[in-house]
Amino acid sequence: MAIVNRIHNFGAGPAVLPLPVLERVRAELLDCSDTGMSILEMSHRSAAFEAIIQKAEADLRALVGWGPDYAVIFLQGGASLQFAMVPQNLRASGASADYLISGHWSKAALKEADKAGRARTAASTEGSGFDRVPTQAELELDPRAAYLHFTSNNTIYGTQWGAPPEPPPGVPLVCDASSDALSRPIDAARYGLLYAGAQKNLGPAGVTLVVVRRDLLERTPDGLPAMLDYRLMAEHRSLYNTPPTFAIYVVGLVLAWLRELGGLAAMAERNEAKAALLYDAIDESDGFYRGHAQPGSRSRMNVTFRLRDAAAEKAFLEQAQAEGLDGLKGHRSIGGVRASLYNACSRESAAALAAFMREFRRLRG
Amino acid sequence: MAIVNRIHNFGAGPAVLPLPVLERVRAELLDCSDTGMSILEMSHRSAAFEAIIQKAEADLRALVGWGPDYAVIFLQGGASLQFAMVPQNLRASGASADYLISGHWSKAALKEADKAGRARTAASTEGSGFDRVPTQAELELDPRAAYLHFTSNNTIYGTQWGAPPEPPPGVPLVCDASSDALSRPIDAARYGLLYAGAQKNLGPAGVTLVVVRRDLLERTPDGLPAMLDYRLMAEHRSLYNTPPTFAIYVVGLVLAWLRELGGLAAMAERNEAKAALLYDAIDESDGFYRGHAQPGSRSRMNVTFRLRDAAAEKAFLEQAQAEGLDGLKGHRSIGGVRASLYNACSRESAAALAAFMREFRRLRG
Repeated sequence: MAIVNRIHNFGAGPAVLPLPVLERVRAELLDCSDTGMSILEMSHRSAAFEAIIQKAEADLRALVGWGPDYAVIFLQGGASLQFAMVPQNLRASGASADYLISGHWSKAALKEADKAGRARTAASTEGSGFDRVPTQAELELDPRAAYLHFTSNNTIYGTQWGAPPEPPPGVPLVCDASSDALSRPIDAARYGLLYAGAQKNLGPAGVTLVVVRRDLLERTPDGLPAMLDYRLMAEHRSLYNTPPTFAIYVVGLVLAWLRELGGLAAMAERNEAKAALLYDAIDESDGFYRGHAQPGSRSRMNVTFRLRDAAAEKAFLEQAQAEGLDGLKGHRSIGGVRASLYNACSRESAAALAAFMREFRRLRG
Repeated sequence: MAIVNRIHNFGAGPAVLPLPVLERVRAELLDCSDTGMSILEMSHRSAAFEAIIQKAEADLRALVGWGPDYAVIFLQGGASLQFAMVPQNLRASGASADYLISGHWSKAALKEADKAGRARTAASTEGSGFDRVPTQAELELDPRAAYLHFTSNNTIYGTQWGAPPEPPPGVPLVCDASSDALSRPIDAARYGLLYAGAQKNLGPAGVTLVVVRRDLLERTPDGLPAMLDYRLMAEHRSLYNTPPTFAIYVVGLVLAWLRELGGLAAMAERNEAKAALLYDAIDESDGFYRGHAQPGSRSRMNVTFRLRDAAAEKAFLEQAQAEGLDGLKGHRSIGGVRASLYNACSRESAAALAAFMREFRRLRG
């Protein structure tokens, strides 16, 4: 079969996937695991699918280090549904929850938490246009909070927490890791709950990973809609009803690919190197490219920058597109340029963009 | 590329898909619509995906006849999430909703409705083991109900409504059509809301179709979680957050395949013929095979029957499996045999099973 022309995909999500994963999906699309049927046609109660979901969970645990005291569940509805499920499950009647506001998505999470009970902003960097994440010293934490919620990487603004915030003793840390999950090693035991929509680092759109410390499942109140009940979903090991089987299958292939590449430490090194290529191109440009994020908060996943004016940005994006560099337009809420460098984005893609940035500046600078 | 060995797949869902659809998915898996990327990697905000979701909606409207007074939305969470969303959106404060109980899934829908307000059973056939659907004369309908909910096909018991129930004037009809959507023409304007998990007749697991009359969207109360808010989802045309892009793409291919085959009337004829092959094998067996459903309520989608005892059923299922007839085991809650004959199940598969039933009876009868 001919090699197809692969574009350099810098889209913010759904995003590039590893080519070996796509080739595997294609190779077994009509016959998965010698069942005589496609993964798309396979019962979620079959032995073949059981093996797929169990291997995905085992590979995730092996990569990150989550032990049996954590439940791993695969849900639907994206991070946006988690914005509602976290408070509905973890915030006991009357308790308030703390939110750290570092961008659009943490505001969206707080908005959902506000609908069903008490939540407060324990820090925000909105005043400086979300050009950084809050420092630990800035956090005004409630020692009796039901949990402390933060967004580990801010896709739109291109900022990322270096280390997670420290909650007060006994307050569980809840993390929306949708845009940097499995991009680097994490201290698994520090998290009470971590969730991530798959469509940036983990796989295709349509499945959301939730990892939750089992003792927190006891907080789930009676009477929640079944599909919003973490305890029920964990009891049924993601098989309460029909899960998004294909998306889970692809996530499993991505996790196996991650392990083959050497795991999270190897991936972090690769991601650092890719991001450095672009930040170097910004830093050496004498202000031709202006990074949005303050250096101490720079994201390894989404590199955001501006050019001198809208006309220059338009020319940059059009010429990049013409040269096969796709998905670079900044989020519609802030404009500019955004290069997303998720796990599956190759070093070659990052190098091609860095070279383009230098050439564009040479011609237009 | 070699033709792979396709099994006869009678699974209840996720279920068989049309071979031309699977071949198309495979052919363009690395490069969809000449974008240089996989559909799995494509932004939901891209022009290419916009074209895909708009064509899917247009093909659905053309097939069924829903006009602009209906909103078409693609959601996540399966029918199980709709069990909660329907009452949360359509049941105005204080009003009660009517449920027709014809099997496991309508009971599950009622259970969710009970959690958040008032709901009542307007008819039930549980007393006779769900061997039929209620008659219109049996319905004890509330003329002030917020809506009347029914399940058009009962996957587990193998029963199906011939025509939908008639609600009192002004009471919207709500239908869970997960297991027979688009299997026959329907009178589109009779429905206030119709929903269906895709994984039986429409596509892969991971997307749920919801079609709702627009005036009912005005009932959605403020303060619902965003992901449970029909009005918001309709306003954003399924793109409030990242939708399950791949599953929508496959549903779109299935809808195009349905139109090419001649639409719902042609599909109904095909489905009648397939079901007749199996019901004939039951009816001519002198009680060797005992159909669960009363003849007037027989489903064209799921044919359920028993053999004389558990040992005979076990032998039947094992031998069928050995001959490439897969997915015939009845639901774990009732056992027996179930053959699911969804749209993509071929006449050849149904004929192979009918022949096997005759041969098995000849040898064992």
